[in-house]
Amino acid sequence: MTVDDEVLAARVVLGWIVEPGNRELYHLVSQAGPVEALARVVSGNAPKTLAAAAAARLRHHEPARIAGHLLSRAQRLGVRIVVPESEEWPSCLDDLSRISLPTHDRFDRDTFPPHAIWVRGTERLDRLAARSVAIVGARDCTDYGAHLAADFAYGLATRGWAIISGGAYGIDAAAHRGCLAAQGHTVAVLACGVDQPYPPSNTGLFEHIASSGLVISEWPPESAPHRHRFIIRNRVIAALARGTVLVEAALRSGARNTLRRARQLGRPALVVPGKATSEQSAGCHAELRQEGDLRPRLVTRVEHVLEEIGEIGVDLAEPERGPARPQDTLDGPELQLFDAAPKRGAITPAEFAARAGVGLLEALAVLPSLALRGHLRMHPDGTYSLAPPQRDRA
Amino acid sequence: MTVDDEVLAARVVLGWIVEPGNRELYHLVSQAGPVEALARVVSGNAPKTLAAAAAARLRHHEPARIAGHLLSRAQRLGVRIVVPESEEWPSCLDDLSRISLPTHDRFDRDTFPPHAIWVRGTERLDRLAARSVAIVGARDCTDYGAHLAADFAYGLATRGWAIISGGAYGIDAAAHRGCLAAQGHTVAVLACGVDQPYPPSNTGLFEHIASSGLVISEWPPESAPHRHRFIIRNRVIAALARGTVLVEAALRSGARNTLRRARQLGRPALVVPGKATSEQSAGCHAELRQEGDLRPRLVTRVEHVLEEIGEIGVDLAEPERGPARPQDTLDGPELQLFDAAPKRGAITPAEFAARAGVGLLEALAVLPSLALRGHLRMHPDGTYSLAPPQRDRA
Repeated sequence: MTVDDEVLAARVVLGWIVEPGNRELYHLVSQAGPVEALARVVSGNAPKTLAAAAAARLRHHEPARIAGHLLSRAQRLGVRIVVPESEEWPSCLDDLSRISLPTHDRFDRDTFPPHAIWVRGTERLDRLAARSVAIVGARDCTDYGAHLAADFAYGLATRGWAIISGGAYGIDAAAHRGCLAAQGHTVAVLACGVDQPYPPSNTGLFEHIASSGLVISEWPPESAPHRHRFIIRNRVIAALARGTVLVEAALRSGARNTLRRARQLGRPALVVPGKATSEQSAGCHAELRQEGDLRPRLVTRVEHVLEEIGEIGVDLAEPERGPARPQDTLDGPELQLFDAAPKRGAITPAEFAARAGVGLLEALAVLPSLALRGHLRMHPDGTYSLAPPQRDRA
Repeated sequence: MTVDDEVLAARVVLGWIVEPGNRELYHLVSQAGPVEALARVVSGNAPKTLAAAAAARLRHHEPARIAGHLLSRAQRLGVRIVVPESEEWPSCLDDLSRISLPTHDRFDRDTFPPHAIWVRGTERLDRLAARSVAIVGARDCTDYGAHLAADFAYGLATRGWAIISGGAYGIDAAAHRGCLAAQGHTVAVLACGVDQPYPPSNTGLFEHIASSGLVISEWPPESAPHRHRFIIRNRVIAALARGTVLVEAALRSGARNTLRRARQLGRPALVVPGKATSEQSAGCHAELRQEGDLRPRLVTRVEHVLEEIGEIGVDLAEPERGPARPQDTLDGPELQLFDAAPKRGAITPAEFAARAGVGLLEALAVLPSLALRGHLRMHPDGTYSLAPPQRDRA
């Protein structure tokens, strides 16, 4: 299936005129289709805010020329454009049409799906998204956080999961790198044009990502990474992935917003704890302190993540156990009698009963069983002592 | 109110014959009273397990002599005995009669209130318990855990809360010491006689605790710290305190059992996180990973603990905030326009509108307001630029 040229051009121009996620534009396109929606926005026959934005943006520009310019720029850069009409469109993004909140906060109102995704890299976006985990967190992370982000990404990548993140310094970069180290596929979702790697010092990382995974953006080439765009962008990270892991986040970290979007989408929202005294984990802990359904799940190992996002019956975490001791299997009177054994020497069943506070008959019944199982040793005179400790065979 | 001598003696002997928490003995005493209950247990006119335990324990002993011996030993040691008939009895312990679980696990069946508490120290147990927090955790703790336990204890003690713990190495000892450092009252709940400080190297600590707080036990003097007694004891730590804080615990730590008892009692169960990679926090994290009502609350600061256990309207934690930036108050088009300001130089409202993706009229309305509030600077030619950063007055 190839996308109609006119539809593609309309989506591209609409995405250039109005910041992504816009509620009114999404509804207009849903009703009228992208070509007619663009015509209405340009002619002023659209909700006032859309018409006003179009008038401002198109003051010195003509829609058809914009489309031509951006499309040819994409071609020169080797960037393709994935729109809802494309076969490669990840349908998980459409879930974003359901999370808009009744609020005056623009960022919670305008959480609708993108109109177009600009893509660098040869992998198919829909296929990577279908088996992917987002790992996000603070730019200003600690070595501990970077280490964990890389470890989670590496472990998930070796199990065939793609890693989605935001391409920022710190946790994002560590997650991308951990995935690359496992020869996995990673997707960097930028808040600016894919031709404007931000931060600039991650340029080498973006080249590496694009060569084996994808660098993508809702914004056309040449778009700058304005501050508000990072929050708009976060919803796409959360919507592409099956679940989102927050590794380190200070109280004000924007990564908490990505986690929130995952929760709003009904996807697993997972949080790695840190030291109670670490400012870089304070945002993680604040999330984990939420009450009720809002509370994300604490994870400390890759297996915990797989348990939340994996197919049912697959990828389930082994129950955690500390090192086993022989007496751990004992309970009730057995344990009481075992504990009553003197450190040195042997005593009679009656002495055992008195020390353990159990009946003599019970002691007479239980002690032979403890001896049979190697916890105690029975002596020829009918007394019992502790069995010598067993060593594991070397 | 003084306790009848016969009642006190009966309670003392019952507590010596049967391990504390026993379900059958609790019901028998509730029905028949302690004096009659003892007579029935000794004569064999009682549930089989009780009669058998009595027969084993009393093989070489006579009840009246046991009572006399223990009471005179207590007097020599300066230890008093608090029973449910005493004015000093902490009524919060009676809640233990409601948590027994329908199970064959002895430790979950036999969680009933103590028959007697042996007390060293001059403070009143009921008064300390009424405003107390339990802080428990691993013996084998890290410096991080010990530091936090001491910090929580210190902070709570300075706000007038007593600290309850188990007198063990590690987290317990750090909690007691943190409380003592704040000149607070701390209560060590032992799993052996109060004349047998365990671990022995904490003897100095126990002396210090007894001089300003309390060292207590359900077991009479001369009782040894058998392993199973620590688990039986834990229910008393949880039941005395208004809430329980678990600081560091490996997966198999017995302190998790204390937290579980707090939860079963419907008291706040609070857990301090640690590094995801720390084995000494793995038990804490496993608790925080519980689903539903069983899940304890994560805490990282004294204020979080007070929020859970404090009187309503008192001790509420201040909401947490990171450092504030002037533009944090901006939202929607205001933030978009602010972000669209060039780093250097001034631009026109029309240029702002185009860069920000908002309508020109909106830009014309919003920019003067941003300038008034000091975010932007307006120039005589009608253009706007970023305002120079404001410094806090030194």
